[in-house]
Amino acid sequence: MKKLINDPADVIAEALRGIAFAHPELRVDHANRIIYRADAPVSGKVGLISGGGSGHEPLHGGFVGRGMLDAACAGEVFTSPVPDQMLEATKTVDSGAGVLHIVKNYTGDVMNFEMAAELAAAEGVTVESVIVDDDVAVQDSTYTAGRRGVGATVLVEKIAGAAADLGRSLADVADVARRVNAASRSMGVALTSCTVPAVGHPTFDLPDTDIEIGIGIHGEPGRQRVPMQPARAIAEQMAEPVLADLDFASDDGVILFVNSMGATPLIELYVMYAEFAAILDKAGVRIARSLVGPYITSLDMAGCSVTLLRADDELLRLWDHPVNTPALRRGC
Amino acid sequence: MKKLINDPADVIAEALRGIAFAHPELRVDHANRIIYRADAPVSGKVGLISGGGSGHEPLHGGFVGRGMLDAACAGEVFTSPVPDQMLEATKTVDSGAGVLHIVKNYTGDVMNFEMAAELAAAEGVTVESVIVDDDVAVQDSTYTAGRRGVGATVLVEKIAGAAADLGRSLADVADVARRVNAASRSMGVALTSCTVPAVGHPTFDLPDTDIEIGIGIHGEPGRQRVPMQPARAIAEQMAEPVLADLDFASDDGVILFVNSMGATPLIELYVMYAEFAAILDKAGVRIARSLVGPYITSLDMAGCSVTLLRADDELLRLWDHPVNTPALRRGC
Repeated sequence: MKKLINDPADVIAEALRGIAFAHPELRVDHANRIIYRADAPVSGKVGLISGGGSGHEPLHGGFVGRGMLDAACAGEVFTSPVPDQMLEATKTVDSGAGVLHIVKNYTGDVMNFEMAAELAAAEGVTVESVIVDDDVAVQDSTYTAGRRGVGATVLVEKIAGAAADLGRSLADVADVARRVNAASRSMGVALTSCTVPAVGHPTFDLPDTDIEIGIGIHGEPGRQRVPMQPARAIAEQMAEPVLADLDFASDDGVILFVNSMGATPLIELYVMYAEFAAILDKAGVRIARSLVGPYITSLDMAGCSVTLLRADDELLRLWDHPVNTPALRRGC
Repeated sequence: MKKLINDPADVIAEALRGIAFAHPELRVDHANRIIYRADAPVSGKVGLISGGGSGHEPLHGGFVGRGMLDAACAGEVFTSPVPDQMLEATKTVDSGAGVLHIVKNYTGDVMNFEMAAELAAAEGVTVESVIVDDDVAVQDSTYTAGRRGVGATVLVEKIAGAAADLGRSLADVADVARRVNAASRSMGVALTSCTVPAVGHPTFDLPDTDIEIGIGIHGEPGRQRVPMQPARAIAEQMAEPVLADLDFASDDGVILFVNSMGATPLIELYVMYAEFAAILDKAGVRIARSLVGPYITSLDMAGCSVTLLRADDELLRLWDHPVNTPALRRGC
């Protein structure tokens, strides 16, 4: 294993030090491993927090800032943060308007956020929770009952973050977040495994000739292993189950999000984007907005995922709302 | 080789198709492989163009937009675009205020941009050229006489782009670009080789136990191969020749740019950032601004580079000027 790290046990603490230095508009609570807006809590605004295992950067810490998250809790690599972190983050961002927890559907995250919400309620903070479960690949998986939460998380954080920035109520912001999740579907593919620093060897074996369709963001098994093939054929196998799971060919357009798993160059991502655009055109699905890049990764895994969100005018307006975070900026 | 491509011969054309679909604020001239602002030429504004071999994305196409480049020419992977492309781009963005060519110091790029400038002059377009050569690693290299142009290219494009956006003259914008280059120094490290799609195997062999200090962005040889070591020791070997080459401990602060070569996860980049921050603190160098992420890459190479720019107040103001490109946005 070759990685730009010191002791594998210190990776998260040291990365958080780097984030604190590099982004003066953010603050890091090193003891609790929380990244939060320097101006939190924002008076009168609903607070948004998320969090999860590290290794998916820029998710979640890179999405803290105006128009998106107020705070993110970092767990160890691929390991849920603990309820105490989430509670602390909740209290840090609560202005009295309540706090939304955005939770990817993994058993550990769901359980710990649930406990944190109860603890926060006991301290007088109103909390709503939204579970993200957009991955059509598999029903249950290594860390999950039900569908996994993947690419839609970025879209939920962006769009619910806009609603909160506009001063909407906790119930409204939670409703928007749930609508985004309900209208999103995703599917991923891995060309290589990732390697967790503390483990030191690839999470799974994937021969040089094969790829895994339907992979999870921790390297959880997908639907099937198939021989390596051209981008066009891979895109078709990714798009087909997504399009089959929800009717995207409505009058509403979609947000097409093509995401790198980490090690895949941007040039390949745009090749895949062009393939997805052609498939959607043929299926009568109109692309209203696009996002292309590494936004929810799996360490050094090569591969990509595609997320479609059926977005009505209101969701598109919220998507276009200004945002100012390390990893996502708009509205200049 | 596993890559998300169709025919290796079509990668650039197909990626350009994806870029055109995904970024409606840009236009792509597919015949000439030019990405340009939809509103080019901008009346009264100096035009900025750059370009080079593909494989370094988001450089240069991802930096086309308000406050940065007006157009970018894409060559084949790691191969200079031809003078005709550059001439066409120059004419596309010229509003009458003249055009600045930002050229990374590689023999092919320099020669072709020179020829394009002569052709443009013959057609009545005033062109200035700025050569970027910030890499302290080696004096001459596979594709270069003199020092290679690497990370400073991003900073030159951002800062000169701001000067042009503010309506400054061609001579002024070129002067700013040259000042940025003169005050920048860079150094890279590779943990793995990249693989060029049309070649199909890694550009160079690097054992699992070794890294290459001073690598170029095409996989050109660096200064030395050393055994894999902790991030702290790698950061020291990268920072030492940079700090020895220019006095950065002035009253001016620096822009610290920590760049991923492509496959290195953000979490490792922030670990490296924290190491560089500690080294600069010890050396009495003040960090005024930061940039962390994959901005000038080498396909799927794992590794990183560090660039320091000694930036006076004027350069910092230009750095902070709004920019709106696919890969870099500020000023929200």
